[in-house]
Amino acid sequence: MSQAPAISPTREKDFPEWYQQVVRAADMAENSEVRGCMVIKPWGYGLWENIQKQLDVKFKETGHVNAYFPLLIPLSYLEKEAQHAEGFATECAVVTHHRLEAQKQPDGTTKMIPTGKLEEPFVIRPTSETIIGAAFARWVQSYRDLPLLINQWANVMRWEMRPRLFLRTAEFLWQEGHTAHETEEEAMEETKLMHKVYADFLRNHLAIPVIPGEKTENERFPGAVNTFTVEAMVQDRKAIQAGTSHYLGQNFAKAANIQFLGRDNTRQFAHTTSWGMSTRLIGTLIMAHGDDDGVIMPPRMAPYQIVILPVTPKPDTRQEVIDACEALAKTLRTQTFHGELLRVHVDKRDLQGGAKNWEWIKKGVPLRVEMGPRDITSRSVAVCRRDQGPKAKEIVGKEDFLRDVTEKLQEIQDALLARATEMRDANMKKMETMEEFQAFFAEGSPGGFALMHWAGSNEEEDKIAKDMKVTIRCVPISDEFAEEGKCFLTGKPSSKRVIFARSY
Amino acid sequence: MSQAPAISPTREKDFPEWYQQVVRAADMAENSEVRGCMVIKPWGYGLWENIQKQLDVKFKETGHVNAYFPLLIPLSYLEKEAQHAEGFATECAVVTHHRLEAQKQPDGTTKMIPTGKLEEPFVIRPTSETIIGAAFARWVQSYRDLPLLINQWANVMRWEMRPRLFLRTAEFLWQEGHTAHETEEEAMEETKLMHKVYADFLRNHLAIPVIPGEKTENERFPGAVNTFTVEAMVQDRKAIQAGTSHYLGQNFAKAANIQFLGRDNTRQFAHTTSWGMSTRLIGTLIMAHGDDDGVIMPPRMAPYQIVILPVTPKPDTRQEVIDACEALAKTLRTQTFHGELLRVHVDKRDLQGGAKNWEWIKKGVPLRVEMGPRDITSRSVAVCRRDQGPKAKEIVGKEDFLRDVTEKLQEIQDALLARATEMRDANMKKMETMEEFQAFFAEGSPGGFALMHWAGSNEEEDKIAKDMKVTIRCVPISDEFAEEGKCFLTGKPSSKRVIFARSY
Ligand SMILES: [Zn+2]
Ligand SMILES: [Zn+2]
Repeated sequence: MSQAPAISPTREKDFPEWYQQVVRAADMAENSEVRGCMVIKPWGYGLWENIQKQLDVKFKETGHVNAYFPLLIPLSYLEKEAQHAEGFATECAVVTHHRLEAQKQPDGTTKMIPTGKLEEPFVIRPTSETIIGAAFARWVQSYRDLPLLINQWANVMRWEMRPRLFLRTAEFLWQEGHTAHETEEEAMEETKLMHKVYADFLRNHLAIPVIPGEKTENERFPGAVNTFTVEAMVQDRKAIQAGTSHYLGQNFAKAANIQFLGRDNTRQFAHTTSWGMSTRLIGTLIMAHGDDDGVIMPPRMAPYQIVILPVTPKPDTRQEVIDACEALAKTLRTQTFHGELLRVHVDKRDLQGGAKNWEWIKKGVPLRVEMGPRDITSRSVAVCRRDQGPKAKEIVGKEDFLRDVTEKLQEIQDALLARATEMRDANMKKMETMEEFQAFFAEGSPGGFALMHWAGSNEEEDKIAKDMKVTIRCVPISDEFAEEGKCFLTGKPSSKRVIFARSY
Repeated sequence: MSQAPAISPTREKDFPEWYQQVVRAADMAENSEVRGCMVIKPWGYGLWENIQKQLDVKFKETGHVNAYFPLLIPLSYLEKEAQHAEGFATECAVVTHHRLEAQKQPDGTTKMIPTGKLEEPFVIRPTSETIIGAAFARWVQSYRDLPLLINQWANVMRWEMRPRLFLRTAEFLWQEGHTAHETEEEAMEETKLMHKVYADFLRNHLAIPVIPGEKTENERFPGAVNTFTVEAMVQDRKAIQAGTSHYLGQNFAKAANIQFLGRDNTRQFAHTTSWGMSTRLIGTLIMAHGDDDGVIMPPRMAPYQIVILPVTPKPDTRQEVIDACEALAKTLRTQTFHGELLRVHVDKRDLQGGAKNWEWIKKGVPLRVEMGPRDITSRSVAVCRRDQGPKAKEIVGKEDFLRDVTEKLQEIQDALLARATEMRDANMKKMETMEEFQAFFAEGSPGGFALMHWAGSNEEEDKIAKDMKVTIRCVPISDEFAEEGKCFLTGKPSSKRVIFARSY
């Protein structure tokens, strides 16, 4: 009876290929001819705009302001912070010339030849610690200038050999927070505050449960003292790092010379932090919530939360139906959901109804509303929820729909979070021995989050990563994970479990 | 009696240097160590955020959606559109390598060496016509796919030899609209619509009157069929091109192969447009409205529209005053001005009152409000308007202030527009002869907008530009400029006056 799903292959059959097909079917992004660089199409960019808007509110509520720093970084800046640079700047775009000369060819075409060689080459920022550090060094003189609480929305670039839309692209969009503080305590407080902001954003906005934790030394941001992470599980049971917040100690302040005259009249180095989230969140959202019919947008994030589909069987009632749909949209747009006016679209295109319907299913619009001549007469609408099957449809009175619509959106938001939490919990397992661990991550077994006691060395951690392609995603912060036990590799005592998983 | 102005030199004395000092005094931007690239500081970026937000609303109201395209452009794309490329791509940043190797030096330092030479170099986009054209060619198959109405917010880069903050920088931020249409009429309608949107934005948001007009062939965007511009006059009487909207005909569609199957079943090239505004608007705003005390922000654009300055003469009433200021701010923030919640800041820093006051004057905050212990008792506040002198202060009842505050903001907005219009009109002159023209633009004379009858050739136009550093800023659209006359150079009949001016 049931129709074939819209996306082929299914998640079960081939998750990576399902992902590519879902992105394409939802028309969210595509590869460009520039290796590793994507074009973010309007439906994908609309989601990014909502991510930006909602995160930006949180950043400002916590006292941050936005600024903008140069795209290009002099090589000498990277050379100052060698540890950071070696971890980061090895695969990046290098600008060596500043002019092109148009050369007419004998066949009438034009060739562009790079000229104007630069004395010092630049790299396109892979991240901005060094260039922002140089600005902070100019701005900070006294403890009165601190804290500096800055965020930047920007594009960054890291040359990628195996790009995947949203998940790993040479150019991507992100925000990078950079702050400088008088004391270690304040900087650590900031690091943890933004870590919390990220965890809240994922849970309450993207409907993705995360386990907040700290990275081990092996997995830290190059040059950081502590790296905090929010790790999500997606439907192939792999982990994805959705955001990180770093306490950088005085390392970057020393490299960039961010010094200030303290309250005690001595010169001191500032304590700095940095934290970031990127367009990778879009890939995370798709892999966390999507089903075999395509993307499912959590209502808080959806570019359109409601799409109204006019049902126009006969030309002579078409205009009346369209007018009624527009009127409904107008009324809906006066309502708010989490403080934002409802985003409602009326799809008036002259296309077959089934095709339109499936298009919006694949794009993941939370509510689809159909209205035709008979609905106008009976003052009702047909409502379809994206978190239910494509055929599920409820006929409700128009007034009831208007009254309950934001409640319905919240129900969908909650249902997505519940479903994602269930999926994660079902695939998170406490184990004690190496045999269990190896079986859990054996080829062909589904894997998931392995909660293990761990007291191994950095080298032993590396060896597991190399042998089994499994890493410690984080040392969870929550007390839930605290208990006495023995490291599954070394047998040494451990007071907490860590999370091992395969990851993106 | 009057105090020396805050900015030295004054506008009268040295306008270019005044401009640099104003930007610095308002803490809006600074030069970075990357040649020609600026750091946009929070007060400057806050203005840019408001420009973005308000323009974005207009773009969406007119049916556009945002998307994002790659930063890097393959040289082969530029070679396809040689006319465009030669006009644009000569001074730009060229990426030739994709890897850095860290080399340890004998002295313990690290050197970064570019490696991984690219087969085909890239340029950092100076504008995105070519790369967006390639995407449009993939997206457009049939007339049903048209119109495509896309906007991009992005950074772009043009190597600049003589950079000036906001006005001419190697990297700058902008929006670039790119649209494709079925017919010439539709594309021309779009070009004119966005031209109108720009003129409205400048007039009603930035409080800058502009003369909408068309560029002559000499001044057109490379490859465009028509270029429409909004030209503003700033206080040194020079013109600044604040935004342009281009009808590109089928030129770019042919170069990028944007073809579609038409209603008549024939393959046709699309008609495309592009239009853009940039961080240059910030420089325009500063030069249009600033005075010898610094920036003046039009209330619609100000990052803070109101700054409340607690007057705390004694420690024991300090907290009470601060609480009252915060309460006032909270009440103000529930009011809206042009649909946006009021942006209000309480400056609680422990600094001397006079220093704080001057800081906000130099930053151009429209309303400064002082409240101290005596004001609390008398339920009043002291209000200073930035468009009046630094000493002008009005004591008003707190309730009256709350009732009238948005009206007061609109008064300032209107006053700035009126002042800028008066300045422009006083410096715009109809002239008939070459002698008048030469005297108007002679060294040492103030210059301005010369309204001249013109029927010269492109070469004659070039010669004037070369000899006198004066160009035709636009052929105004408005009928006001239509009248019969004779070209001041050639004596040929002309039915309209054009605007000649020196320009940024
Ligand atoms: Zn929240
Ligand atoms: Zn307007």
